[in-house]
Amino acid sequence: MDRIRLTERQSRKYVSGLFQHMGCSPAQAEIIADHLTCAEMRGLASHGLSRIPFYIRKLRNGGYNPTPNFSVLKETLSTALVDADDGIGLVSGSFAMQMCIEKARSTGCAAVSVTHANHIGYLGYYSMMAAREDMIGLTICNAGASTAVWGTTQPVLGTDPLAIAVPTMDRPMLVFDAATSVVAQGKVAVAQIEGRPIPGHWAFDQHGQPTTDASEALRGSMRPFGDYKGSGLAIMIALITAGLGDVAFDMEEDNLRRILDDSAGSDLADLFVAIDISAFVDADRFKRRADQLIDRIKAFAPAPGFEEILMPGEIEHRKYQAAQAEGFTIDDKLRTLLERVNSSEGFSYDTNAWPIDGQQI
Amino acid sequence: MDRIRLTERQSRKYVSGLFQHMGCSPAQAEIIADHLTCAEMRGLASHGLSRIPFYIRKLRNGGYNPTPNFSVLKETLSTALVDADDGIGLVSGSFAMQMCIEKARSTGCAAVSVTHANHIGYLGYYSMMAAREDMIGLTICNAGASTAVWGTTQPVLGTDPLAIAVPTMDRPMLVFDAATSVVAQGKVAVAQIEGRPIPGHWAFDQHGQPTTDASEALRGSMRPFGDYKGSGLAIMIALITAGLGDVAFDMEEDNLRRILDDSAGSDLADLFVAIDISAFVDADRFKRRADQLIDRIKAFAPAPGFEEILMPGEIEHRKYQAAQAEGFTIDDKLRTLLERVNSSEGFSYDTNAWPIDGQQI
Repeated sequence: MDRIRLTERQSRKYVSGLFQHMGCSPAQAEIIADHLTCAEMRGLASHGLSRIPFYIRKLRNGGYNPTPNFSVLKETLSTALVDADDGIGLVSGSFAMQMCIEKARSTGCAAVSVTHANHIGYLGYYSMMAAREDMIGLTICNAGASTAVWGTTQPVLGTDPLAIAVPTMDRPMLVFDAATSVVAQGKVAVAQIEGRPIPGHWAFDQHGQPTTDASEALRGSMRPFGDYKGSGLAIMIALITAGLGDVAFDMEEDNLRRILDDSAGSDLADLFVAIDISAFVDADRFKRRADQLIDRIKAFAPAPGFEEILMPGEIEHRKYQAAQAEGFTIDDKLRTLLERVNSSEGFSYDTNAWPIDGQQI
Repeated sequence: MDRIRLTERQSRKYVSGLFQHMGCSPAQAEIIADHLTCAEMRGLASHGLSRIPFYIRKLRNGGYNPTPNFSVLKETLSTALVDADDGIGLVSGSFAMQMCIEKARSTGCAAVSVTHANHIGYLGYYSMMAAREDMIGLTICNAGASTAVWGTTQPVLGTDPLAIAVPTMDRPMLVFDAATSVVAQGKVAVAQIEGRPIPGHWAFDQHGQPTTDASEALRGSMRPFGDYKGSGLAIMIALITAGLGDVAFDMEEDNLRRILDDSAGSDLADLFVAIDISAFVDADRFKRRADQLIDRIKAFAPAPGFEEILMPGEIEHRKYQAAQAEGFTIDDKLRTLLERVNSSEGFSYDTNAWPIDGQQI
């Protein structure tokens, strides 16, 4: 199957142009382009350009608000509750984490909840915003029911993920970004688009049986990671996010309907936390010690079958660096989907200008 | 093998008396007694009375300070760095979470790091302190190297656990309390005391092979839960705790020596975080919705092989309730160890007065 190669610049220009065409402000469109392009560059295809058809469908049909007014419903010195006004989640998420960082800079530690939010993409993006400011960043969110809790095989909760980022000095930033399912549901969606089977321990079919068929898995449920531990973590994340944001829980019919209905906002909730390292210890000392910890861990002998010991976010960092030089590739099927979006929305951009990978331009 | 039955009252009286005998203040001894007794009552034998011989050895040989002076080294509106002064971890932990709760009540969200700390027992204890105040409580800590990171089979990090507690209205409080290893190393220690084999996926022996022998496992390494995900989480927890507390990392020789040396404090670090629910939403509404989420989840059909769907902390809550009525049991081998502690420390308490379970008194 053909892969299509894009440069970072092409991707940013395309995404920003498309979302401005849909009515988003240039500032918002730039954030969306940055988020989706960085996801692709970090190798997170499940949270990159493949999300565009869904976002555009929601914008087209009124589910997403291209000109949201983010309002602060409640605020204390170290917290805020932000109403995302059905805006694109990538934008409300960046807004909220920025506010969280500013509060943490003032008081040492802050938490910002976003209510009436939409899909916020990959959570590492926001946690990394905090880590770039010498803070520890934590992001959690809920999602429509897709994942079994331990003891069931039905979709009870979302993949309700968490991301933690911690700054380093010279080593790649540490970024732990994980769904509480074995893998993010987006990876199953990508496998479905590309017509590939999935590993048998990722998901159950509608009858509660493990399945390698991506379509069956999307009709069934994802499996929680680490059995009861990942499942327990998912329950806590589901409650904390939807509870603080006071939105419907993952499995509530209202929530499911909203996600499937293109004319409705998804009404999800996120929580962003930032802890200012310098409130505890000199930030440069912390970052040098982070480098030392990484070096100590990587100096251990790899187990049989492993070539090296990888840090959280290390593979993504390598891919990002490579993509800065060489761009990244997407599946030709995705290009076709994007071309269809462009033509149905009347956005004049020819994705056929993107070269097939390996061919001379 | 005989089990010995203790009432809650007996356990509290014994533990408090023993630690006062060792020079702790009555207030400190009560905290220690509450922590260890609650651990036993919640069925967490690995964090209950079995820890006493280790704590006493450290107190006897100067590693633990029975009369610590907790000082605040650094403070902002929403954070504090507390020096535990080599005190007993159960006491410094309670002190720090209490401070964290008070800060969160004032600003909405707070984080307190404890440095130069010792073993703090089960982390759920502290997170539950916050949840009882209508807050979300998070506790993480580091520990001496015992657990492999993904890609090695050697002891690289501690079991570096995390606990999150969230309040409910009428249902048992939700308490997620998990080591980032498949199980807490304390469970292997209990199996060793009781001469029981352990499941093969818990740990590796010194040669990197899975083992069912508890003694071999204690010489080898624990396995991370959920493979690379639990391992990644452990790396983040190890860095955040030891980094903010500015103490040696889990695998650093200094740290290992300190843990094995009874005359040295363990020099560990903890982080406590509290988020005040009422800063976001009415706390009673949040708690009623927590009950609703629990009821919704538990109403799903259990998978084959499951009788019911359990919430985080639910089994522990049931055991706690049963123990309030009937007390709890410990292994006779542990009683013998405690008797030895009493006699070597000259503490006049006859553990033989505790009846063998099932016998008439």
